Amino acid sequence: MIDGTLIFIGLGLYDEKDISLKGLEEIKNCDKVFTEFYTAKLTGTDIDKIEKTVGKTIEVLTREETEKGDKILNIAKEKTVALLTCGDPMTATTHVDIRLRAAKMGIKTRIIHGSSIVTAVPGLLGLQNYKFGRATTLAFPEKNYFPTSPYDIIKENKEMGLHTLVLLDIQSDKKRYMTANEGMKLLLKMEEKHKGNIIKQEDIICVVARAGSSEPIALAGIIKDILDKDFGPPLHTLVIPGKLHFMEIEAIQILAQLPAQQVRKLQKL
Amino acid sequence: MIDGTLIFIGLGLYDEKDISLKGLEEIKNCDKVFTEFYTAKLTGTDIDKIEKTVGKTIEVLTREETEKGDKILNIAKEKTVALLTCGDPMTATTHVDIRLRAAKMGIKTRIIHGSSIVTAVPGLLGLQNYKFGRATTLAFPEKNYFPTSPYDIIKENKEMGLHTLVLLDIQSDKKRYMTANEGMKLLLKMEEKHKGNIIKQEDIICVVARAGSSEPIALAGIIKDILDKDFGPPLHTLVIPGKLHFMEIEAIQILAQLPAQQVRKLQKL
Repeated sequence: MIDGTLIFIGLGLYDEKDISLKGLEEIKNCDKVFTEFYTAKLTGTDIDKIEKTVGKTIEVLTREETEKGDKILNIAKEKTVALLTCGDPMTATTHVDIRLRAAKMGIKTRIIHGSSIVTAVPGLLGLQNYKFGRATTLAFPEKNYFPTSPYDIIKENKEMGLHTLVLLDIQSDKKRYMTANEGMKLLLKMEEKHKGNIIKQEDIICVVARAGSSEPIALAGIIKDILDKDFGPPLHTLVIPGKLHFMEIEAIQILAQLPAQQVRKLQKL
Repeated sequence: MIDGTLIFIGLGLYDEKDISLKGLEEIKNCDKVFTEFYTAKLTGTDIDKIEKTVGKTIEVLTREETEKGDKILNIAKEKTVALLTCGDPMTATTHVDIRLRAAKMGIKTRIIHGSSIVTAVPGLLGLQNYKFGRATTLAFPEKNYFPTSPYDIIKENKEMGLHTLVLLDIQSDKKRYMTANEGMKLLLKMEEKHKGNIIKQEDIICVVARAGSSEPIALAGIIKDILDKDFGPPLHTLVIPGKLHFMEIEAIQILAQLPAQQVRKLQKL
């Protein structure tokens, strides 16, 4: 007889205080609480602080345990189990997979939403959400693997005048988080390979660092000017702007310090 | 001497418990708290419940007061002021406008993020966020105003195999919230006008109602089958799927009851 419940609870963006009141309440009623930090990472906190905030012991699952899912599902068959995830749950396919397997077993599932980089980054820059095309992720290049689909996605979006949210790779197990600098260099390398005139040294790019923290960075500038700038600790995110609306130009000037010379250029377009 | 602060705090999706712990903490330190419900609406709560939860009196601004902004800015010049907004702040241009005016006056500004329909809807349906193109909004048609840009956006996305998040109009002052049914009918009307073969009676559409509540509806079906179905109280949202990945097909079958016959059709594509 299956009468358990699996609740996916979003931890939000940055630290242990980004969870919602609803999420906290749900955790208090759970028999068992899991989390995992391989699909994403809250860089402003640690497991001790999260445990202290939610008032429960939390078992941190490895990548293998998360992907296998059995540990979670076995308990969720009979009990109320929470899986805490960074951001808004279900952005990682692994979580969708676990939810589908739970549902197929007859386990009730539920989602408690959290804040996400997908809306936080446009918000911090003052860019309009509905002017973003498809998002993409830059992966750390591997020996024989240098995917250039992000380049194609940026190209498609640009041709339609749309902005592109460019998420940067996270390899939590290696404590490796792609910086905005590495991301920009990868994009320039893709340009070198494809020569589509999509990402140029003179183009405007936006960088957001530590969204959700009390001191996030939101900076807009010319790639060559900010390529080696230090944006501080992770996580970093990039935005390749498409056609900017006049209020968006003002926003990245005032909120993200786009130099006046660049603002004038944009205003002439 | 300007030394005030204006903090935009996201209330999240549905009721008074969708705010983050961080948001709640910030409110406690504010001298004055405003909110407005004309750009969006939390349908699972009311101002009394929100006030009780945050432990402060909240002044609800009218549309005019929000757009004018002076009431907020005058106090924020000297004090710490919060503006509570539904979802994740800054999705409404009005909020960006207020933030820019505050920044130009020398008022410090800050954002506390909240959960948003933009990621909640894909999550509830088990659809992958990075497979969504540009989002769009269906407005209530006015006498001489029947914009069809949503149709063009859906067309563009479909041609690229991407899903479209279709937000539905809110006229809070008239307590008018577009239902999924009205939305589907509008889309069919746009098809009649444009004949681009983009939205057909036999096409699959996804409906999400009351995202963020304890009993959200996530339903996938053929437009003609669900056109007159009752999805209950607002808010409703639509998704027009593009090309579905096999895990997404399974997701809308299991999590959103897509009929088996439709699943088989999709699997053959």
